[in-house]
Amino acid sequence: MTPITRAHLERLDGDDVLAGARAEFVLPEGVVYLGGNSLGALPRHAAGRVRATVEVEWGQGLVGSWNRAGWFDKPTVVGDRLARLVGADAGEVLATDSTSINLFKTLAAALALRPGRTAIVAETSSFPTDLYMLEGLADLLGGYERRLVDSESDLREALDDNVAVVLVNHVDYRLGRLQDMAGLTEAAHRHGVLTVWDLCHSAGALPVRLNECGADFAVGCTYKYLNGGPGSPAFLYAAKRHQEQARQPLSGWFGHAEPFTFVTGYAPSEGIRRFGTGTPPILSYVPLEASLDIWEKVDLGAIRAKSLELTDLFMELVAERCGEFGVEVASPRDPDSRGSQVSVRHKESYAIMRALIDREVIGDFRAPDMMRFGFTPLYTRYTDVWDAVETLHDVLATESWRDPRFAIRATVT
Amino acid sequence: MTPITRAHLERLDGDDVLAGARAEFVLPEGVVYLGGNSLGALPRHAAGRVRATVEVEWGQGLVGSWNRAGWFDKPTVVGDRLARLVGADAGEVLATDSTSINLFKTLAAALALRPGRTAIVAETSSFPTDLYMLEGLADLLGGYERRLVDSESDLREALDDNVAVVLVNHVDYRLGRLQDMAGLTEAAHRHGVLTVWDLCHSAGALPVRLNECGADFAVGCTYKYLNGGPGSPAFLYAAKRHQEQARQPLSGWFGHAEPFTFVTGYAPSEGIRRFGTGTPPILSYVPLEASLDIWEKVDLGAIRAKSLELTDLFMELVAERCGEFGVEVASPRDPDSRGSQVSVRHKESYAIMRALIDREVIGDFRAPDMMRFGFTPLYTRYTDVWDAVETLHDVLATESWRDPRFAIRATVT
Repeated sequence: MTPITRAHLERLDGDDVLAGARAEFVLPEGVVYLGGNSLGALPRHAAGRVRATVEVEWGQGLVGSWNRAGWFDKPTVVGDRLARLVGADAGEVLATDSTSINLFKTLAAALALRPGRTAIVAETSSFPTDLYMLEGLADLLGGYERRLVDSESDLREALDDNVAVVLVNHVDYRLGRLQDMAGLTEAAHRHGVLTVWDLCHSAGALPVRLNECGADFAVGCTYKYLNGGPGSPAFLYAAKRHQEQARQPLSGWFGHAEPFTFVTGYAPSEGIRRFGTGTPPILSYVPLEASLDIWEKVDLGAIRAKSLELTDLFMELVAERCGEFGVEVASPRDPDSRGSQVSVRHKESYAIMRALIDREVIGDFRAPDMMRFGFTPLYTRYTDVWDAVETLHDVLATESWRDPRFAIRATVT
Repeated sequence: MTPITRAHLERLDGDDVLAGARAEFVLPEGVVYLGGNSLGALPRHAAGRVRATVEVEWGQGLVGSWNRAGWFDKPTVVGDRLARLVGADAGEVLATDSTSINLFKTLAAALALRPGRTAIVAETSSFPTDLYMLEGLADLLGGYERRLVDSESDLREALDDNVAVVLVNHVDYRLGRLQDMAGLTEAAHRHGVLTVWDLCHSAGALPVRLNECGADFAVGCTYKYLNGGPGSPAFLYAAKRHQEQARQPLSGWFGHAEPFTFVTGYAPSEGIRRFGTGTPPILSYVPLEASLDIWEKVDLGAIRAKSLELTDLFMELVAERCGEFGVEVASPRDPDSRGSQVSVRHKESYAIMRALIDREVIGDFRAPDMMRFGFTPLYTRYTDVWDAVETLHDVLATESWRDPRFAIRATVT
């Protein structure tokens, strides 16, 4: 096999159909940013949009902007724009609250649709807040058995006719392992089990096909691959067929059929709006809207193709250049099981990641021994992969991670 | 009595100790803005702060800003700054989520602290989302009686030893009627009942004294009198004495004792942080922080004194100038029972308010027949009161509200 060279990767960057997208983002000079699976980069035109919202819509339009600037409709308007990215139809996605809150809503709605069933299945590899929210809901309701499973095969085996809901992370946050949405949904439905999919690590990383797979409910964040900004509104999906029956307990005025008649009793809105709760944080929607302008010009097939090339390349180069230093690629090699991140294990991962960040290669660390590198095809270059691996090689070969300033533990998000 | 003149009010504006605060806000030229009880005005330095957060902290700092720019701590840091404004101590207030979500958390926590009791008392005059959230929680839990009462005396009578929680709106949204926090809290505690106060219409409008009154829990929004911007984060208060025992079911990772150890089981954080849930919408905190810079220079006694003067003046002038046209002041005349808004009843309130807005006097309408005018002492002038009443007089005297374009109903927030 011909060895890969940086010059070859420069040519790939030159030919990249997504190269234009990178120009639409602000990226600090000299930084290799592989943290987009945690916080996406800033869309270049977001700042101007935010400024107009603050200075014109709020500053000049004041309270009238709830109507005139369309603030009131942001959860549904942004939801409809997100729908295409997750394989849903307009009217099936609401942009609202946090992923955690939306998990509570969708889990509660799904459980209520399966009265009499008393078990809930979820994975130990879930992002922890998923399990915490499930725990909070199950404790509040009482009488539910939580079946936590360690693998996909265990997950399938845990399904039976007493299970109300299965909560699945489409791509897991630690290893970037992609679950088979179609197959698992079908397996769940064979037992009458409803599915709640967490799309935090797949939305914007690969084509998600909720309706094609027959999914029931889903949630996801917009601040990772979707580049909505820190803590930008999360989303939830409820398949059209469930909406009329679905009830969710966080039944605030933004989910009411007639929020401005101010009646004392709750009546759910038609459609996806019934999953709304309180007044939405308008400012936090605006950069997401700017990001969606970019997403509208992008083919998700091209995203997936480049994502697989970047992650393949990274895994290959890490094995080739860094294998001798005790690093081990932990993410799946099989493209059908891979998201858009690569996790690398080393017993000194914490210090190594700090040394990398010091050299402006940004990934992150997950306890106890994992480095995570996220590949965001909108703005990650092929040469970024090369440069990241060369820096990793250098940090390992020179043992620069042994510098005492990299040993001090701090909170890492 | 000497008749009030505009010249006299100009002198009051000139002598106003809070006149400097108005200069810190953006207010459109020629507009009399009496909608600050719905959406506060834009603090002048907020736009620059937001820009720095977007362009520097996010654009350049990227994911590292969760630590380096203090994003992770915003809910507690902003909460501590809000504490003084509601009579709480540092560590008792968390800035997070929406008022609706925070109602769910505090109500659930309070109910759990009173096991065995099966009634909840609330007012029909509550802002509706309070009742909707209570309904959602009570339906989820099952077995609770909701006692809705129409007046303060009914509220006191509804308290007994089977009541777990009483939910009270400190100032009601329709009439601006101020409840007696100390007296009601004492009455509740005589029966062992816990109090949840909704401060949406009192925080920033008058001195709130949660700890002095012995309150148990509270929630409130920050986008009205506190000028945090559209949908800015709400807050919740839990008295220090309840925090160790308090459990709330929206138990997401931001409420976990160790959110970054990624364990599968939930363990609540120490202190007020346990009321956190999902990832906070960072951008939406920033204008609120800018507003709090202004609040820190303000004496709440001066706020209250000016608020009562403005509302007194408005009520007096409306009676004097507009009484003959069938308008009726609906808000309490008694200063001890008055918030910082004045509601005025007229059977054609909808069209009259639209005519006022067309003349750049901004208040709002609440069905079926109420006009609301909010007085925000930080930026409302004495002459604004005069100009608003003169415009109202003119709209009524000339019957300009009969213009057909004011008759069409639209959603009004």
